[in-house]
Amino acid sequence: MANDLQLPRGFQAAGVYCGIKSDPQALDLSLFVSDLPASAAGVFTTNRVCGAPVIVSRQRIPSPTVRAVLINSGNANACTGAQGVADAEASTAAIARSLECVEQDVLVCSTGVIGHPLPMPKLLNGIEPLVNGLEASPAGLERAARGMMTTDTVPKMAHQAIAYGKDTVHLTGAAKGAAMIAPNMATMLSVVMTDAKLSPQHADQLLRDAVDLSFNRISVDGHTSTSDTVLLLANGASGVELTPDTEYWQPFQAALRALCRELASAIIRDAEGASHFITVRVKGLKTEADALTVARTIANSALVKTAIAGADPNWGRIVSAAGYAGIPWDEERLRLTIQGTEVFRDGGPTPHDGAALSQRMRADRDIILELTFEEGDASADMLTSDLTTEYVRLNAEYTT
Amino acid sequence: MANDLQLPRGFQAAGVYCGIKSDPQALDLSLFVSDLPASAAGVFTTNRVCGAPVIVSRQRIPSPTVRAVLINSGNANACTGAQGVADAEASTAAIARSLECVEQDVLVCSTGVIGHPLPMPKLLNGIEPLVNGLEASPAGLERAARGMMTTDTVPKMAHQAIAYGKDTVHLTGAAKGAAMIAPNMATMLSVVMTDAKLSPQHADQLLRDAVDLSFNRISVDGHTSTSDTVLLLANGASGVELTPDTEYWQPFQAALRALCRELASAIIRDAEGASHFITVRVKGLKTEADALTVARTIANSALVKTAIAGADPNWGRIVSAAGYAGIPWDEERLRLTIQGTEVFRDGGPTPHDGAALSQRMRADRDIILELTFEEGDASADMLTSDLTTEYVRLNAEYTT
Repeated sequence: MANDLQLPRGFQAAGVYCGIKSDPQALDLSLFVSDLPASAAGVFTTNRVCGAPVIVSRQRIPSPTVRAVLINSGNANACTGAQGVADAEASTAAIARSLECVEQDVLVCSTGVIGHPLPMPKLLNGIEPLVNGLEASPAGLERAARGMMTTDTVPKMAHQAIAYGKDTVHLTGAAKGAAMIAPNMATMLSVVMTDAKLSPQHADQLLRDAVDLSFNRISVDGHTSTSDTVLLLANGASGVELTPDTEYWQPFQAALRALCRELASAIIRDAEGASHFITVRVKGLKTEADALTVARTIANSALVKTAIAGADPNWGRIVSAAGYAGIPWDEERLRLTIQGTEVFRDGGPTPHDGAALSQRMRADRDIILELTFEEGDASADMLTSDLTTEYVRLNAEYTT
Repeated sequence: MANDLQLPRGFQAAGVYCGIKSDPQALDLSLFVSDLPASAAGVFTTNRVCGAPVIVSRQRIPSPTVRAVLINSGNANACTGAQGVADAEASTAAIARSLECVEQDVLVCSTGVIGHPLPMPKLLNGIEPLVNGLEASPAGLERAARGMMTTDTVPKMAHQAIAYGKDTVHLTGAAKGAAMIAPNMATMLSVVMTDAKLSPQHADQLLRDAVDLSFNRISVDGHTSTSDTVLLLANGASGVELTPDTEYWQPFQAALRALCRELASAIIRDAEGASHFITVRVKGLKTEADALTVARTIANSALVKTAIAGADPNWGRIVSAAGYAGIPWDEERLRLTIQGTEVFRDGGPTPHDGAALSQRMRADRDIILELTFEEGDASADMLTSDLTTEYVRLNAEYTT
């Protein structure tokens, strides 16, 4: 356990196995607790169909008094109707009793199979060992990160420290992801904790900014899950108060963005079936929204993603995906590089050694596609993974 | 050769091998000729990056005097700059000399590898045998349909006849497609011929209507090619004149729609790597545009397409894809059937025998997903194919 993955002051975390997953070696129930009432904000899935925990948690924040986030994996508690909402509420009530706080101050997330009721007796039996297992240590954080995992192969955590004179503010996050995968599994979830002091409104503002620049710029398969949730808890234990009108604001904003980018990138690096981690970098369009639209269209093209799986420097698929993004640009003034090698310029292919470039793409795990337009100064990146036969195999197996 | 695949009166067709493709058993140059000047309209790719033939043909129609459409396969003449446009124009000039018409009355389409100049000597050498091979027979039509093929496994043709008292109007079409496939191959192309008499403006109006209801409602991988083209030629040889204010109009519109749907459906049935032909049928939304958006979102979901490849009746992926389409609907009032079996209703799964349904999906080539909402009376269908490991294998091979 890396020593720098410490929790911010006043936070504890735990993870246990309560029996929702079939594998008793796995963990399936996690808890993040703030010893002090924390300002909390959240960003949730935009899917019209959302899980019961999203319905419940969304009502409770922004709030200045949140104490805990309960997360189970193995069952998403989605498409479960009124019973699902009652179960999500009952789970938070059980945590509230243990922590001696009010139910409204406990948030809840679930990830896993959809359309099946939560196995409540198992979950409720897990509450006591979970609360007893709370630790302010990196080990506690790692267990909590493991309890969120579904088909993830590694737990995902990140930490940032910001020095303000003699004071230090910590930011620590855990995440799970990504892709809606083997039957009805779903969801990316992330919890970010900080000991900075923030109002709920400022927490909300900072979180939306960071999510827009990180989790909203990754895509495995373009399929928005019913349970996606990112939460930020700020408990003020560092004594450092942050408001937009002070010089303390900007470094914190930058650190939160960096932390969210690190977690988002960890999700893509663990995308199922993927053999390459792809950055689509678009420069020189009129607005950032234009640049993001072009980058997203390329990142979601099955033809671009299969080409990269095959180590094929297929400039035609990349340029034509940019062409149907619906954004105005001039074909004669686009330059495209793959791994730094120019492959397209002035409306046609640049002479290049395709076989050598293919060999490099096969050897490199990280692939960078860079498109430079001459329409303006705005740029944006999207992160994605390649589309392999393994992805199709994983997602085509009928296992319900 | 089916006898009913006859050409409309006053049309001839031919296909030859001129050496653009490496396989001398294949055909790679096709010609459709109207003996009389024909009203012509076209619908072209919306991709900003478009092939030289699209640039040239788009300028020449709508027109009342078109005589011919020249099509080559094996080379898309796209991303080839000013030389590409000059080559496309020179090809049409060569046909015009042979047919003794003006260059402006010849249209041109190309499909195949992009970024390589057209091999003009080969193409020009093919013109004389091509023109000499023109026939008004079903065999001529089939050779022309074969000369358009790239990775298609079968030629695609369709015919409709409309009886107006003692007069008969014929509509005959050929198509190739679909998916942007093995390195830089692309494109769906279709030529539809009729002996009805139509003004260029009416031809344009009818073609846009029919394309919107047919070719624009299919998707293999959501990747819009640089060369997609559908052309309609109406030479009036039947003596039947069609205008919107007569009762002759509607049966012709219906026949043209049916013909385009048949060709579009043939393209999807020949989609590379596909093992299932999928109809996504959406009913009960407020507008047809809403219904089409939901159907298109489901048809483009990699997770839905891999589930069907795996014969997995995965209602969760279908419902959640409908959920992120951006269209308002009530989760409690959606009913979903797969192959007629209800799998979702009232916000949750309907009890059903998943293993039996999976077995049926594995056995059936045609899969019908039907979503019935209760928001309004509008409906729309999308046709697509499943996403198989074979699709990924075909598209991930580096062969340039």
